[in-house]
Amino acid sequence: MRFAISSAVACGVLLFSSLQMNAQSTQPSFNNTLMPQPAKLTVGQGGFVITSTFTVAAQQFSDERLDAGIQRMLHRLEYQTGVPIAKDIRKDAAGASLVIDVKGAGEAVQSVDEDESYALNVTSSSAKLEANTVVGALRGMETLLQLVQPDHSAYFLPAVSIEDTPRFRWRGLLIDVGRHFEPVSVIERTLDGMAAVKLNVFHWHLTDDQGFRIESKLYPKLTGMGSDGLYYTQEQAKEVVAYARARGIRVVPEFDMPGHTTSWFVGYPELSSGAGPYQIRREFGISDYAMDPTRDSTYKFIDGFLGEMATIFPDPYLHIGGDETNGVQWKNNPRLVEFMQKHGMKDTAALQAYFNQRLLKIVEKHHKHMVGWDEVMNPALPKDVVVQSWRGTESLAAGAKQGYQGILSAPYYLDAMKSAGEHYLADPLPSNSDLTPEQRKLIMGGEVCMWGEQLYERTIDSRIWPRTAAIAERFWSPENVRDVNDMYRRLHVMSVRLEAFGLTHLTQEDVGLRALAGTTDIDALRGFASVLEPVSFGNRYQGQHTSQLTPLDRLVDAVRPDPPSKHEMEVLVSAFLQNPSQHEAERRQLEAAFASWTAAAPKVQQQVAASPILAEDAAERALQFAQLAAIGSQAITSLSGGSAAPAGWKQSSLAAIDAAKKPEGLVRFTELDPLQKLVEATQ
Amino acid sequence: MRFAISSAVACGVLLFSSLQMNAQSTQPSFNNTLMPQPAKLTVGQGGFVITSTFTVAAQQFSDERLDAGIQRMLHRLEYQTGVPIAKDIRKDAAGASLVIDVKGAGEAVQSVDEDESYALNVTSSSAKLEANTVVGALRGMETLLQLVQPDHSAYFLPAVSIEDTPRFRWRGLLIDVGRHFEPVSVIERTLDGMAAVKLNVFHWHLTDDQGFRIESKLYPKLTGMGSDGLYYTQEQAKEVVAYARARGIRVVPEFDMPGHTTSWFVGYPELSSGAGPYQIRREFGISDYAMDPTRDSTYKFIDGFLGEMATIFPDPYLHIGGDETNGVQWKNNPRLVEFMQKHGMKDTAALQAYFNQRLLKIVEKHHKHMVGWDEVMNPALPKDVVVQSWRGTESLAAGAKQGYQGILSAPYYLDAMKSAGEHYLADPLPSNSDLTPEQRKLIMGGEVCMWGEQLYERTIDSRIWPRTAAIAERFWSPENVRDVNDMYRRLHVMSVRLEAFGLTHLTQEDVGLRALAGTTDIDALRGFASVLEPVSFGNRYQGQHTSQLTPLDRLVDAVRPDPPSKHEMEVLVSAFLQNPSQHEAERRQLEAAFASWTAAAPKVQQQVAASPILAEDAAERALQFAQLAAIGSQAITSLSGGSAAPAGWKQSSLAAIDAAKKPEGLVRFTELDPLQKLVEATQ
Repeated sequence: MRFAISSAVACGVLLFSSLQMNAQSTQPSFNNTLMPQPAKLTVGQGGFVITSTFTVAAQQFSDERLDAGIQRMLHRLEYQTGVPIAKDIRKDAAGASLVIDVKGAGEAVQSVDEDESYALNVTSSSAKLEANTVVGALRGMETLLQLVQPDHSAYFLPAVSIEDTPRFRWRGLLIDVGRHFEPVSVIERTLDGMAAVKLNVFHWHLTDDQGFRIESKLYPKLTGMGSDGLYYTQEQAKEVVAYARARGIRVVPEFDMPGHTTSWFVGYPELSSGAGPYQIRREFGISDYAMDPTRDSTYKFIDGFLGEMATIFPDPYLHIGGDETNGVQWKNNPRLVEFMQKHGMKDTAALQAYFNQRLLKIVEKHHKHMVGWDEVMNPALPKDVVVQSWRGTESLAAGAKQGYQGILSAPYYLDAMKSAGEHYLADPLPSNSDLTPEQRKLIMGGEVCMWGEQLYERTIDSRIWPRTAAIAERFWSPENVRDVNDMYRRLHVMSVRLEAFGLTHLTQEDVGLRALAGTTDIDALRGFASVLEPVSFGNRYQGQHTSQLTPLDRLVDAVRPDPPSKHEMEVLVSAFLQNPSQHEAERRQLEAAFASWTAAAPKVQQQVAASPILAEDAAERALQFAQLAAIGSQAITSLSGGSAAPAGWKQSSLAAIDAAKKPEGLVRFTELDPLQKLVEATQ
Repeated sequence: MRFAISSAVACGVLLFSSLQMNAQSTQPSFNNTLMPQPAKLTVGQGGFVITSTFTVAAQQFSDERLDAGIQRMLHRLEYQTGVPIAKDIRKDAAGASLVIDVKGAGEAVQSVDEDESYALNVTSSSAKLEANTVVGALRGMETLLQLVQPDHSAYFLPAVSIEDTPRFRWRGLLIDVGRHFEPVSVIERTLDGMAAVKLNVFHWHLTDDQGFRIESKLYPKLTGMGSDGLYYTQEQAKEVVAYARARGIRVVPEFDMPGHTTSWFVGYPELSSGAGPYQIRREFGISDYAMDPTRDSTYKFIDGFLGEMATIFPDPYLHIGGDETNGVQWKNNPRLVEFMQKHGMKDTAALQAYFNQRLLKIVEKHHKHMVGWDEVMNPALPKDVVVQSWRGTESLAAGAKQGYQGILSAPYYLDAMKSAGEHYLADPLPSNSDLTPEQRKLIMGGEVCMWGEQLYERTIDSRIWPRTAAIAERFWSPENVRDVNDMYRRLHVMSVRLEAFGLTHLTQEDVGLRALAGTTDIDALRGFASVLEPVSFGNRYQGQHTSQLTPLDRLVDAVRPDPPSKHEMEVLVSAFLQNPSQHEAERRQLEAAFASWTAAAPKVQQQVAASPILAEDAAERALQFAQLAAIGSQAITSLSGGSAAPAGWKQSSLAAIDAAKKPEGLVRFTELDPLQKLVEATQ
């Protein structure tokens, strides 16, 4: 039995897998759990065992970054296998277990065109990793660590030949630290996770209405009055940039302007289009406040500030936001209205275009390319502005047709609480796209967006991971890698790998459940939580008017989006329904799942009732949990030719499933669709 | 049903409790889960509900430290209850939910004599916390947060009257960062946990043979060559000191001399008694190397270094170690032998006493009191030296009889992997002590010791917590608070509370099991792990010659010492055996436990076999797990008057239990004693 998700059920609410491995195999053979999948993979015979004699040689080129990357890789290899491994890096390739041949350091400041390709060859006696740049070598080492797998008494590297290069050159993750601050440790472990799945851009949304998170020495009141004391010092920001560079990741800072700027105005009201005074905004949603685009002093301030930021963030790109400026404060200020009339601006969009033109000059003065959200697209702006699309594929394609470079984000909003599978199938450049080859080149890639309104450092990991690993594969791997079942099989393994960086996506649910119930005795609640997920950002906002001051300690904060049981249940039900009498294994697994819900339900109801904070959200859901379990059990029985359901059962069951779909407690059941299919299939 | 460990079993290997709560109660009544127990507690009727109108007034005195403490308390209260609470602190007590009356700031540098007492009164409408010092108020706020409990639809503060003060004035936790470095984040979350259980001394073991962990600007090669780059900058150390002070915790740094100093010698071989050169020591155990006590240059160096450290660590005490200098390097150096002869020193202990006398002068020059391990006791040293006893209660008492102040550590070595109950009953000043009242005053308290040879940042929390909470109660609460069962009942609740600080003692077992098995499917392994614990430091060292370079990624690293099932099984078996026919509930729980082991065992064996790193340690243990389950089930059946066991069963079962006691895989079973009692009780 290999390094894989195993298949038997011991005692769990829903733990099974569609993958069956041969437990008797004696020959090391390759179990492909790579994520993202490489561009080209050839599998050979056998492989070689990792022992304490494992050695590495960096033959052709080495520098500090490569050496540090190799050291990290060796430490991880050691921890994966339990085999103590010497950390010295040889020059001489003779006899080395792994030879790393890198042509050169790569770019001094990583650009979008950095060469990330690598080739990895493992034979029955050794491995060779070749890359043009250190970044390519870093990517290859992540692949190498994912190749390591157990075979009976030892861990081995299977014989493979890989040639790999990314499909898109911009593969990002946005983290919004404006709405809720995230400590450096959270950012760094996220960067580790990003490197593991070969993402290459960390988009740091550093300022918003609710917080200004980066120290300015020129304008100390930005954080002094606009951050609640929660911000990154310049030294910390530089540390993050260095940490990212060590992992081949660019850091693109975003300073959202001219809207989303209330936190700027707290210390510097003169930047605004109104009178002030201002306070840090606690509410979410679009603010009416915006910078005053008519005053030279505004641009002088921005120039000073961006100049300072340019010394911290070496990346060639700078994100100026530009989204969701509603123009209300502009229209309410007679001086601005007069300015617009005087300059023949027919609406506030024209005023924002004017602002962007002047902003672009400043950005370019500091030797940066400008990136902005959809709203920045305007004939007045030159074509080297990069448009990040929160509006969708059409908006992105429209931009490309106008000649703008683009990055797709709309389908990758993690707070929409969609499944990994749904994100996975959204393609920045779908095969049916009507773009010309020239326009296609303008689609630089995509970015996952982790907006921060409804999360904080304890819950962010489970919102980002493991779903982001699936999206990272979309950005890296060939377009035709689209098998959702196989993606989920590998995603479970990837999820475990990510824990090694200290990511808490798999542990925080338990922590939350223990805190909510006030006890370590959470087995039953685990079962309940395994079939629940958070509702979307919008639905939560409807159910609970969250602000920055809302404690995020509810059941919705504990449970994870797209828990493993969701896809597993879909697969089981789909297989079972093809022909119930021929899918005995699926029948047994479904029966066991529903039986375990039934067993857990009384305890769940008891614990929910005993905890006011749980009862408020989950009292109704706990009753439904028991109902759904009974419905599932009866459906399986009926479909398997067992005792028929009583009259009216089907109708009442479908009604109960419908009722369970209704918004309640900020959480939703993950298994309603397959359950409904089971009930509908009964006679 | 209140905030308490609940009693039903849904689906778990061993999750039950001896505590039965009344689920129908409608009157808010007090469930005492305080830890440590206060000196004096009177319980009243009712209490008051925490709502969003909760307000705090600091009436008499306030300063920055108190305000920050109140803010932290309010944030925690908010997260415990889900009730949004305003964070402003009023001056006016009228109408405030909580009035905090503090007489003054307390000492500018907290001494051992700081007043930590407080009084807390909760009525049906409000609460009042009174203290002479801010530290007292901080202690009282921890108690207040522990009082908050649920009752049906809300969280309330029960009506109580508490007068509290510690039994011992020195209540410490030592963390050894010399053998394995711990990041600042680990130290800070540990300080949070310490504050929650009212510990007041963080003993920072900063230097040892294996690493020098604090930056010296005077002697940069100390960390430059002696730390592998893993050390605290002076700025970070100051941050830790401030973090501790904010929580009423003193930081006592230890610079172990003249032995345990190899890491000093790597950069400064001239300090040593030999020729060098030296390398960072990777092996553990006593080193032959020691400082040269005969040269003035040694003392000049120490003087410079300690002077620098005195600017970072304001505490009146400084720990100079002084342990385990075996004199080998001294005896091997003719110059030192000649020095000893010239000065009439009959052995190397005399030379160490000479060193300590000169060291004491330096320590006193920097206005510090000296603390050292047992070995520093010597007639040549004055009586204001504090002796920390790693040798035991007798050594401590012997010191007191000679007039030395003492701190007990021997019974509180966490790496001995003893149970919380065992640590709990060890008293620094047992009631049967033969010390005079005057000598008793010299016993300042105790210190928990977390030595760092076999742990690192991922595993340290589960070694420290929750057991340290039990020891903290021993140091704080009256001597007669000694009910082990009640301690465990409260310890489970405390364990959950500690997670709120980011402590990972309850999550890292799962992380370890997933990494070892390479899958998220760990329900069966959880059951297996719940009846395993690490062997002691010494036994592990025998079984695996650990060095600083040994990867700590084995099963022994994942499992926790004294898992909850250990005490629970003891209690169940003991109750059941009093009269098997009258303890139906215990019988059912025991049957369920053994049945769940039996159910988990095949999957455990399969997963262990599939993972080389697991198989190496646990193949035999997994077989024994199944055997023990069968033995337990049969014993319960026999004792309940069910089918008799086959002939020879008792003998073979006792033999199997004996075999399971043998060292194997660095882990031991936690349930062998009660299991043996069950078997022995059968006919």
